[in-house]
Amino acid sequence: MAVYTDVSFEDLESFLGLYSVGAPLTFKGIAEGVENSNFFLRTEEGAFILTLYEKRVQEGDLPFFLGLMEHLSARGIACPLPVRQSGGALFSALNGRPAALLTFLNGVSLRHPDADHCAAAGTALAALHEAGSGFAPQRPNALGPKGWRELASKIADGADGVEKGLGDLIRTALALPWPDGLPSGVIHADLFPDNVLFMNGRVSGVIDFYFACNDAFAYDLAVLLNAWCFDADGGFDVARSTKLFAAYRRQRALGAAEIEAMPALARGAALRFLLTRLYDILHHDPAALVRPKDPRDFARRLRFHLDVKNSSEYGL
Amino acid sequence: MAVYTDVSFEDLESFLGLYSVGAPLTFKGIAEGVENSNFFLRTEEGAFILTLYEKRVQEGDLPFFLGLMEHLSARGIACPLPVRQSGGALFSALNGRPAALLTFLNGVSLRHPDADHCAAAGTALAALHEAGSGFAPQRPNALGPKGWRELASKIADGADGVEKGLGDLIRTALALPWPDGLPSGVIHADLFPDNVLFMNGRVSGVIDFYFACNDAFAYDLAVLLNAWCFDADGGFDVARSTKLFAAYRRQRALGAAEIEAMPALARGAALRFLLTRLYDILHHDPAALVRPKDPRDFARRLRFHLDVKNSSEYGL
Repeated sequence: MAVYTDVSFEDLESFLGLYSVGAPLTFKGIAEGVENSNFFLRTEEGAFILTLYEKRVQEGDLPFFLGLMEHLSARGIACPLPVRQSGGALFSALNGRPAALLTFLNGVSLRHPDADHCAAAGTALAALHEAGSGFAPQRPNALGPKGWRELASKIADGADGVEKGLGDLIRTALALPWPDGLPSGVIHADLFPDNVLFMNGRVSGVIDFYFACNDAFAYDLAVLLNAWCFDADGGFDVARSTKLFAAYRRQRALGAAEIEAMPALARGAALRFLLTRLYDILHHDPAALVRPKDPRDFARRLRFHLDVKNSSEYGL
Repeated sequence: MAVYTDVSFEDLESFLGLYSVGAPLTFKGIAEGVENSNFFLRTEEGAFILTLYEKRVQEGDLPFFLGLMEHLSARGIACPLPVRQSGGALFSALNGRPAALLTFLNGVSLRHPDADHCAAAGTALAALHEAGSGFAPQRPNALGPKGWRELASKIADGADGVEKGLGDLIRTALALPWPDGLPSGVIHADLFPDNVLFMNGRVSGVIDFYFACNDAFAYDLAVLLNAWCFDADGGFDVARSTKLFAAYRRQRALGAAEIEAMPALARGAALRFLLTRLYDILHHDPAALVRPKDPRDFARRLRFHLDVKNSSEYGL
């Protein structure tokens, strides 16, 4: 929710010299994404987002992220399409940061999705999983079990200061067995309502692929479950998850192992967001122009999933 | 450069029920304006800015600001036009803040205007001064000499900590005589390059009327001089000011008293921005999601104007 790196119109003009997108008509910093600096740009040829990648996105990962969006876009997924420079490059430096120009998608993200929106998100995720097949580059999930352990060691001292008992909760969750061998491929890994655009009740776009990686499809579904199926007070809404899973399965079948693993995957997904939010709040730089999100929302989800005995409780 | 008050899509939808602007297609917080929360909105009917007025803008002043934009717009000035609600209102509450919907203007603001851009800004200001005539509501300049004294007393303790000698500089400037009786009317009072949009070298819009008030036209010109005619290193560029004043005078004549008063007015304008920036930096809330601007830029300008013997040094 910030612009970290300033881009003047004059900086923009020289950067646009690398592209063939026409002359700029509008250029504004937008409050979107906690990771990067984003600008809305309208030119004679269309609407775009200019993104400058800040420290959390590794330059070495950009060919994966941008190449993936190009791959998905070519397969009919409504996602931002990176515009290639006249020389063919997908990104280059602007004010000391790697920067890319992507097509802008219309649509609005919802704060309070209902069960039908959850179904639409489930369908969109399944379509994404299918369209990702054939994308050759690989990127391991940096926020999988190994990454969780590293994060946990960095926040161990502060967790109980945020909420009493969080340290124990994290240790309990980390000690549980983690399913492996599930069907895998390219996953979004962060498909929160912020990242799904709607128009007239239908998904008009999926954005923010900067956590995408290769991992179990069902783990991506567990992220979706955590992100979409709890109400504003943190209570689980089985009507939403029932519709979400049913819609996903109409597009891509789930195997028995994937269904059985859902409680464990849901705990893992809740733990992932609990840990990254804890890390962000404990290492928050007040000059960062962004308000850290509350980690306790995911502590509550994690406790819920720890009580789940089997996947039927999710409506699966 | 921030969004202070969160507006969900659901909040927006119910607010838009008060208007007849069609269904929303895009809705994004934008990093614009240090005073308010701003959102870019595109609907089936066009592009808009939704503004929520934060603490610095008094609700009682909104009929003046919004009415002025409506008045200017009707007289051919390219400025945001407040969209009236179906019931006729220019603003109403949204998430605890007064909020208004205004038309969005294309164009980009420049960081490094050249002499031709300065001329275009001069012409735009003169057109604004003429178009403001006949606007009946009145708003005194809260940041005139009386306001400066109040601000000076609030920053007296901290000024020398920002830069040695600032306290003396401010006292010197405050003690100088202030011209009165100059031709007056509605002025913008904050026409920095941020607030002037260009397309293809021409002014496509003037924005941010939230310091507008009744005061001397020539004082507004002195603000423009301070805002446009110094280079990035703080050096005065007489080529720019010469073109700026000439362009203004082609549209609106300047009387002898206005010309003679320019050094005093320029000192006052520099003092006004020095004081508000000092206040902002000394009372900065790190949670405010905005980086305060450097007051020393205007200390340097003020020192320059104190050495000016007469208006011919400005190319006037």
